Amino acid sequence: MSIAENKTEELHHIVILGGGFGGLYAAKMLSGRKVKVTVVDKRNFHLFQPLLYQVAAGWLSPGDIASPLRVVLNDYKDTYVVKAEVSDIVPSEKKVVFRDGEISYDTLILATGSYHHYFGHDDWAQKAPGLKTVEDALEMRRKILLSFEAAERETELEKQQEWMTFLIIGAGPTGVELAGTIGELTKTTLKDDFRNINTDDAKIILVEGQDQVLPTYPKKLAEKAEKFLTKLGVTIRVNTMVTDIEGNNAIISRNGDSETIQSRTILWTAGVKASSLGKALAKNSGVELDRTGRVIVKPDLSVPGLEDVFVIGDLAHLSTDGGEPLPGVAPVAMQEGKYVAKFILNKLKGKQTKPFEYKEKGNLAVIGTNSAVADLGELKFAGFFAWLVWAFVHIRYLIEFDSKVVVLFRWGWNYFTRKRGVRLITGEDPFPLIDSKKK
Amino acid sequence: MSIAENKTEELHHIVILGGGFGGLYAAKMLSGRKVKVTVVDKRNFHLFQPLLYQVAAGWLSPGDIASPLRVVLNDYKDTYVVKAEVSDIVPSEKKVVFRDGEISYDTLILATGSYHHYFGHDDWAQKAPGLKTVEDALEMRRKILLSFEAAERETELEKQQEWMTFLIIGAGPTGVELAGTIGELTKTTLKDDFRNINTDDAKIILVEGQDQVLPTYPKKLAEKAEKFLTKLGVTIRVNTMVTDIEGNNAIISRNGDSETIQSRTILWTAGVKASSLGKALAKNSGVELDRTGRVIVKPDLSVPGLEDVFVIGDLAHLSTDGGEPLPGVAPVAMQEGKYVAKFILNKLKGKQTKPFEYKEKGNLAVIGTNSAVADLGELKFAGFFAWLVWAFVHIRYLIEFDSKVVVLFRWGWNYFTRKRGVRLITGEDPFPLIDSKKK
Repeated sequence: MSIAENKTEELHHIVILGGGFGGLYAAKMLSGRKVKVTVVDKRNFHLFQPLLYQVAAGWLSPGDIASPLRVVLNDYKDTYVVKAEVSDIVPSEKKVVFRDGEISYDTLILATGSYHHYFGHDDWAQKAPGLKTVEDALEMRRKILLSFEAAERETELEKQQEWMTFLIIGAGPTGVELAGTIGELTKTTLKDDFRNINTDDAKIILVEGQDQVLPTYPKKLAEKAEKFLTKLGVTIRVNTMVTDIEGNNAIISRNGDSETIQSRTILWTAGVKASSLGKALAKNSGVELDRTGRVIVKPDLSVPGLEDVFVIGDLAHLSTDGGEPLPGVAPVAMQEGKYVAKFILNKLKGKQTKPFEYKEKGNLAVIGTNSAVADLGELKFAGFFAWLVWAFVHIRYLIEFDSKVVVLFRWGWNYFTRKRGVRLITGEDPFPLIDSKKK
Repeated sequence: MSIAENKTEELHHIVILGGGFGGLYAAKMLSGRKVKVTVVDKRNFHLFQPLLYQVAAGWLSPGDIASPLRVVLNDYKDTYVVKAEVSDIVPSEKKVVFRDGEISYDTLILATGSYHHYFGHDDWAQKAPGLKTVEDALEMRRKILLSFEAAERETELEKQQEWMTFLIIGAGPTGVELAGTIGELTKTTLKDDFRNINTDDAKIILVEGQDQVLPTYPKKLAEKAEKFLTKLGVTIRVNTMVTDIEGNNAIISRNGDSETIQSRTILWTAGVKASSLGKALAKNSGVELDRTGRVIVKPDLSVPGLEDVFVIGDLAHLSTDGGEPLPGVAPVAMQEGKYVAKFILNKLKGKQTKPFEYKEKGNLAVIGTNSAVADLGELKFAGFFAWLVWAFVHIRYLIEFDSKVVVLFRWGWNYFTRKRGVRLITGEDPFPLIDSKKK
């Protein structure tokens, strides 16, 4: 059925679940194209996740990296935003069930992403928070900043050191960026703030199960990153696994040798698991999931047996070359969102679309204010220039959805003053904060 | 004992409880003056409360109006910041007790301010949140923005109207500013965001027990403010009290005539009560409190019978002319903080200080982006020029403690684009959000 032939009929209704990079790119491409688009998200904003660690470190406010979905999609009167939490998908009835309602679709795009995953140790979630939501970032910020406050008051040396030890589990881009950021907090930002402690004495330990930091990067760049991190006071432990977290103790193990690390601030950047909607879809349609819960899709990103359901982004498992599936990063989600939009529009016009091909744009990871590593295919480099490229790319994508000039401005300001002003500890403090009796 | 004569002895230790306007002005004046200063606060930041309503409205981020206490007091090595919650004051032992520790003082300055007060209806706190902390502001923001999201999904007209009705209780400066801000959200900011509702249909009701909005302002300015508010769609009910809040119903009463207002967003800006530390001090020293819990101080702001304990700001009850006590506003707290610092430094040098005199600087309240009312003694005016004065004064005080250029920048940006970008709904949603079955 072509839209052009049926002008008087109702518009074809495309429901997109999730307003992340994938969902929002699809929505922008489909809006204003004589289809009805509904974006469903449990949050009212798109979150620029690659910069979430800067919220955790108190460099940016949550509002700096979030854009209201309604603002992004403001201009299209046939595009709707529904704030609701999806609980089930029923392909046989072409409907999506919310916790408090439901919605019908003609075509469905699933883009609900992933969450952190504790490899069967769900009880670690409380002890070692992950970094996926605004609330996660504020919780990490609370933990990090509170550690220094407690260390300043603590009078027993051993306990002080426990507060000043930061253990980061997982050295992917987020772990590396977080460790570098904490290093910079201790070396620069917080340097003059305390009287009883020297923030430089902090121990920052970055643990990685594989044999280098940034496991998906070329060895040479990983070595550069390790050098930058070491300069910021970060201790790197590769080939090392966390085997237990109990109270303020984490047990790490390398080739069978165990060690206990006493730390009051354990942060989790290790594993992700696909959104539970993959499971819901599988239950109602028999579609296959991979080990981490991703939906194994066809080369056109549709679900086998359900030609009107597409899965994109972190929730999709697609191998374009028969090898490893595409990684769960923003560029993949964006390109998939664009592709699916084009596919659907073509189909409505009776046209075919070639299978999805991913154009690798390269990888960037930042370590501190002046250093980054860049892997742009042929071009691999590290240092200040890589940092400039990183800053440019992130600003470019940030302003794509919303005019986040405030971020550019705040970065510029921070860069020259080294005075990072979003260092609020919010939420509830633990009690007692310190164990010593005095102060 | 004069400091000059006792250089080898320990420094005189001044403990300041509370890092608000009063405490921080005292701390800045005392720092670097050959005394040891310790500022104790349960939060790690100073909050610029006069702009908190802009956080509630999603125009500013909490970080924009908060300055880390350690940053403000960075330069003075004899000035300490302790993050702790005070539970008691023991003047007989010259010590302050924390929930998890204690500290001794030579001189104590109490500046822990006030909280909202529900006049004996403590159960209203859950139903009608107040506006004193960052968390309060984010909770108000959540409620306000969520209302529109729910109204957009709600299909029953009556329930939709319940969501689109905003009841603000108390028309002091905060209530007036909040009502004006919500008016502007509905008229401008959110105008193009929704498809099923017209935000202009929102009912904004501002209730005040006295006979005009801004009860402490001259009648003429209050009338101007009422005119501005009406233009923004705010319905004003003076001489009106809230007698009950039950579920989504608030009963308001005027001259014995009762009316039920159905609203899902009831906001409290009516009453304040002094910090509970006044009571703690009274229990241990027999000092007198007024009806709202403020400590009745001597003309030099010291506590009768305790010449080394001072109370300043919202927690102090001081009448300089035998009439009404000074109001709980920032300028009073700032001037009292400065005065007490001077008094203590003089005393250490054996010098006398004249009793405290308040220099009235005037009052400013803002209604929307272009209008404000100003009562600067001889000079009373309203409109755009008053708004400019308001913006100038607030920026001036904001940058006093920290370089909040980001705020200036964000205001300028907002002013010209009308795109307010901090509209995040955070925290947990109620369930079910809407009662209707579909959407």
